[in-house]
Amino acid sequence: MSATIPEGYGHLLELPIYAHLGTVRPDGQPQVNPMWFEFDGEHLLFTHTTKRAKYRNLHSNPRMSLSLLDPREPFRYLEVRGTLVGETPDPEGEFYVRLGRRYGIADTRPPADRADRVILRMSVESFTKQ
Amino acid sequence: MSATIPEGYGHLLELPIYAHLGTVRPDGQPQVNPMWFEFDGEHLLFTHTTKRAKYRNLHSNPRMSLSLLDPREPFRYLEVRGTLVGETPDPEGEFYVRLGRRYGIADTRPPADRADRVILRMSVESFTKQ
Repeated sequence: MSATIPEGYGHLLELPIYAHLGTVRPDGQPQVNPMWFEFDGEHLLFTHTTKRAKYRNLHSNPRMSLSLLDPREPFRYLEVRGTLVGETPDPEGEFYVRLGRRYGIADTRPPADRADRVILRMSVESFTKQ
Repeated sequence: MSATIPEGYGHLLELPIYAHLGTVRPDGQPQVNPMWFEFDGEHLLFTHTTKRAKYRNLHSNPRMSLSLLDPREPFRYLEVRGTLVGETPDPEGEFYVRLGRRYGIADTRPPADRADRVILRMSVESFTKQ
């Protein structure tokens, strides 16, 4: 990881927050979608499919930003900026299931589109916060 | 307004949700920040200052996208895509105060940076949802 997590904001990378991921469409329009995530201490990991717009956006422009609102203090947030640095097939949806459980959905099952599932790995290059 | 609000999603434009606004930085990196908003039936309105990165982003690329997560059902969200179509000075911070009260902060006062405050007006061009 090339950036230091701002002091007092680390919990936002640990909590199961519905984060909002920004990507850029090929026509230059930003796109923002809520996402589950997991932080492994170095990268941010997402479950995604190869069939959606976000995936095509990232293959056109790999830059990504993630906005995390503090659920306890909505005036505080952390924005993480980075790049898509890796993707791993998840054809059984195992990572999807792990994320679903992390988000409190104990009975998460592999999704119908698991054959197209991938784990996206985002670098952590810089932070902004309030 | 050039787009029809998807049926069953209109409440997301009315509730005081902390929405996440995507813009694009001049270097092509997306930026996402939580924002207060108000929907006037035609445009989305935000309070902002002329001194921040988002403002500079929008003067470089006026396209904007707003992600609204349903607080009652986190699998549902609405994304609004549009463009910055207007901005109005708010030098007394009156719109800031109105938004703060809409978000449940009854004692909202004009902010210290009110001299730089503007009301940003975003067109509603298309929706995506889940």
